[in-house]
Amino acid sequence: MILRLGYDIQFHFPAPTAVVALLHVHPSRDADLRAPDSLLLEPKVARETYIDTFGNRCTRFLAPQGLLRLSNSTLVHDSGLADPVNPNARAVPVHQLPHQILCYLYNSRYCEVDRFTSIAFELFGAVPPGWARVQAVCDWVHAKVTFGYQYARSTKSALDVFTERVGVCRDFQHLAVTLCRALNIPARYATGYLGDIRVPPVPSPMDFSAWFEVYLEDRWWAFDARHNQPRIGRVLMATGRDASDVAITTSFGTADLRYFSVISEEVSKDISSHQNADVA
Amino acid sequence: MILRLGYDIQFHFPAPTAVVALLHVHPSRDADLRAPDSLLLEPKVARETYIDTFGNRCTRFLAPQGLLRLSNSTLVHDSGLADPVNPNARAVPVHQLPHQILCYLYNSRYCEVDRFTSIAFELFGAVPPGWARVQAVCDWVHAKVTFGYQYARSTKSALDVFTERVGVCRDFQHLAVTLCRALNIPARYATGYLGDIRVPPVPSPMDFSAWFEVYLEDRWWAFDARHNQPRIGRVLMATGRDASDVAITTSFGTADLRYFSVISEEVSKDISSHQNADVA
Amino acid sequence: MILRLGYDIQFHFPAPTAVVALLHVHPSRDADLRAPDSLLLEPKVARETYIDTFGNRCTRFLAPQGLLRLSNSTLVHDSGLADPVNPNARAVPVHQLPHQILCYLYNSRYCEVDRFTSIAFELFGAVPPGWARVQAVCDWVHAKVTFGYQYARSTKSALDVFTERVGVCRDFQHLAVTLCRALNIPARYATGYLGDIRVPPVPSPMDFSAWFEVYLEDRWWAFDARHNQPRIGRVLMATGRDASDVAITTSFGTADLRYFSVISEEVSKDISSHQNADVA
Amino acid sequence: MILRLGYDIQFHFPAPTAVVALLHVHPSRDADLRAPDSLLLEPKVARETYIDTFGNRCTRFLAPQGLLRLSNSTLVHDSGLADPVNPNARAVPVHQLPHQILCYLYNSRYCEVDRFTSIAFELFGAVPPGWARVQAVCDWVHAKVTFGYQYARSTKSALDVFTERVGVCRDFQHLAVTLCRALNIPARYATGYLGDIRVPPVPSPMDFSAWFEVYLEDRWWAFDARHNQPRIGRVLMATGRDASDVAITTSFGTADLRYFSVISEEVSKDISSHQNADVA
Repeated sequence: MILRLGYDIQFHFPAPTAVVALLHVHPSRDADLRAPDSLLLEPKVARETYIDTFGNRCTRFLAPQGLLRLSNSTLVHDSGLADPVNPNARAVPVHQLPHQILCYLYNSRYCEVDRFTSIAFELFGAVPPGWARVQAVCDWVHAKVTFGYQYARSTKSALDVFTERVGVCRDFQHLAVTLCRALNIPARYATGYLGDIRVPPVPSPMDFSAWFEVYLEDRWWAFDARHNQPRIGRVLMATGRDASDVAITTSFGTADLRYFSVISEEVSKDISSHQNADVA
Repeated sequence: MILRLGYDIQFHFPAPTAVVALLHVHPSRDADLRAPDSLLLEPKVARETYIDTFGNRCTRFLAPQGLLRLSNSTLVHDSGLADPVNPNARAVPVHQLPHQILCYLYNSRYCEVDRFTSIAFELFGAVPPGWARVQAVCDWVHAKVTFGYQYARSTKSALDVFTERVGVCRDFQHLAVTLCRALNIPARYATGYLGDIRVPPVPSPMDFSAWFEVYLEDRWWAFDARHNQPRIGRVLMATGRDASDVAITTSFGTADLRYFSVISEEVSKDISSHQNADVA
Repeated sequence: MILRLGYDIQFHFPAPTAVVALLHVHPSRDADLRAPDSLLLEPKVARETYIDTFGNRCTRFLAPQGLLRLSNSTLVHDSGLADPVNPNARAVPVHQLPHQILCYLYNSRYCEVDRFTSIAFELFGAVPPGWARVQAVCDWVHAKVTFGYQYARSTKSALDVFTERVGVCRDFQHLAVTLCRALNIPARYATGYLGDIRVPPVPSPMDFSAWFEVYLEDRWWAFDARHNQPRIGRVLMATGRDASDVAITTSFGTADLRYFSVISEEVSKDISSHQNADVA
Repeated sequence: MILRLGYDIQFHFPAPTAVVALLHVHPSRDADLRAPDSLLLEPKVARETYIDTFGNRCTRFLAPQGLLRLSNSTLVHDSGLADPVNPNARAVPVHQLPHQILCYLYNSRYCEVDRFTSIAFELFGAVPPGWARVQAVCDWVHAKVTFGYQYARSTKSALDVFTERVGVCRDFQHLAVTLCRALNIPARYATGYLGDIRVPPVPSPMDFSAWFEVYLEDRWWAFDARHNQPRIGRVLMATGRDASDVAITTSFGTADLRYFSVISEEVSKDISSHQNADVA
């Protein structure tokens, strides 16, 4: 399956402002690219691209005063398979986890693990550890939190979601990530493309999506407390401790969003070939 | 100058518990070691030592049920010079910072940078950027927050410190770190040894100390909002985004502290030589 | 001046639900009523009306399952004078305040006075006490907080407003009330009608308005950190410690708002007479 | 049974400071007084005594600069009966509650009812309403929260207690009160004397105690999430929405506590008669 991925994001900057953008397909998907994954900046601006400590490809630049457009259109090959499900995936005891995984058990800005220890064990301590326990966390968050774009706010933490019970994508994942960590299951926040591939389209404008990953058995697995069903066509952009680490753009100063559009769709076989030819 | 450093820490674990300990001298001070820096565990327990993503030396192990003693005694050479002061150190514009420094501008569990943007600029926006602004932050926190061991709590964030105005070591640094980040100055939390070297001894029992570092000009500089004066004999153990990343010990389960003692003192020349001979 | 005041509010209740409504003109304005101030409930529901401990007229009833409409249309005489301004109004020392005023110095749900003591004196301690200091609080809140309906949420407290710097009507007043109390100035939250009387109409749909009152000299005075200019045509409905005490409706169960419309407008002399005739 | 009640509290005031003291036996116990209930102020200070809107007897005064001693010693007759237990006490539907009770369903500073609605019903929704449900709340708080004087802090709210799971007397009651209100059970905070009457004495110094009251059937009933067993010898001093309303002393400025001692003990029959004779 070939997915067409892209975005058109426009900010107005009242003054020159440093920006870090995580607007690339994740390095782990490089082999799947069927077209260049180029962040286009208009006007042209000098930029640097680097890999951060979480393994994400980042682009940084000094946005000039005025309007700046960030856009991209690329093609990515995808297996077309839904998120893997493995009910037998075991929880790894903390002392057997790889070193580099440990940091995903810790507190972060939006994931106050220290405030959830008792709550998490009260809610999920009786569920068998491993996949079933993570799924129970997802089911619970999915059932208890109501989605609504009007509930978004940048300061909202897992504890806020737990008490307010409303939120957007990122809020669902922050609460699930925090509960998992409090249960000693490594969990990290993920962002990327997720189109309505082979699920009924939703009427809301397309957006980047957040999900989360947990470490079970010997690898990371995708979970999604918002949709809570295996999906086709997730294309990872970045992972981190929480949304602070992997904001699509982080501006060190005022940035007024003026336009925002994301595309993530399956390309029909013919068009896909055509496009591949084009970009080859 | 030779410093004798050591600790004796005893926990009771009601059940086998995974522990990560950051109880080593920081790798950046390896060349200064004049005796092995060995974490002694009693009873003996298998352990692994590794360097985390922040560059800290960590030891992890599975603590058995019952009492566990962590102890150490080592000798470290120190310049005997006070923390460097450089009023000319310039603030580095965000777009010119090294990539690996950027993460120290971001939010973390105890440093809600997102909630301090306006507050920080209202308080310090008129102070010249660079060293003077960081010093102003330190002066302010030092003047406004009252120290007291009874004010410690593990969930206390920078915003709590800002409103409650009381705290321990770590609370002073969390508030200062957060204000610096909100001012676009990279800042990180530091822990280590800090004896009463050439300052009047304080009556309280010796403890590990927290301070913080900011990135100015081309390097990290030590600041200390708690003591707010250049000190002699800081020996760094670990740096991280905040106290969550660099807790002396992180236990993934219940751990009851039963005994805690830290030593950090200047060794007189004779004894120092003697000790060096001993350990050689 | 005659004001036409009214509302049409419709809720859907999934189950029978107890409701308290503060949808009456405040008893202090009874003499100004030029038409009955009758809360119409459709379907008809038994109700009780009483005065609460804050002096507000309340109506309570058991809403039946299904749709419930609360509506009203009345006429109120108003002086047509703007909010009084008295720069000479003195602050009353706490020990000289009337007993019944003291509770307006205390903490309440959305006004965490205990967390603002230092902040308030740092910001306003240098301003002369009395009217000038309250005005300085209003000016500050008005300048620092950005209005937007999308920023409303029911759990938002003064501290949230102080850090997020965005909000609706009630948020502006909660922050101002809290700062005043922290400065030992009695302050209470007020709700009522406030049309665009002799100010340029704003494009947003009309709503009830929140403002606040402070006790200076020998009486309560209206202030409004949202609009921050003397206004004509405020008609008080209720006062309390904060929005918790004087919600337009408090439902003890789920209540889905389906329709909301408020009218508060000046009636031209002719129409006014006509209306009076009608309603007489 | 005759109880000897008294206190000796000493503050240092760096400047003249208005103080409100709730240091009287509650008016509902006036008939039980066997000696005058006189608040002695040293040095002598003019004071006023009044009843606040919650029905508590309050004394207010302007504390002069320097040391101020508040003391009292009185005798109160008590039934000697333990707190009444009535498992048949029914929950009153909100729409049938007396008007003046409704405010005890609302939010207050330390009782964020709005953040507990879902949590409370998830935890206790399956318990039969009425006495059993309140007892279940008490049992839960008593079992889940660990007592410790070192956990006291003035800004701690019910949500903090719910996540931190440690606290003092008042913290237990705040959490229980909040859960009850979220379940639509009127609940209020109570303070008073509670000696170790016919229970084994605890080694800690005697203190005033906090408990809470809920409205069931047709009256208020005492519950105590801290001790969670019926006790003999509670002598009520004040009730309010939470600790903010009924602090033993509220100082409008700095007040340094220098000495604190409370007595609440059963007087033996002989001594009791003697004392009665004395005071008669």
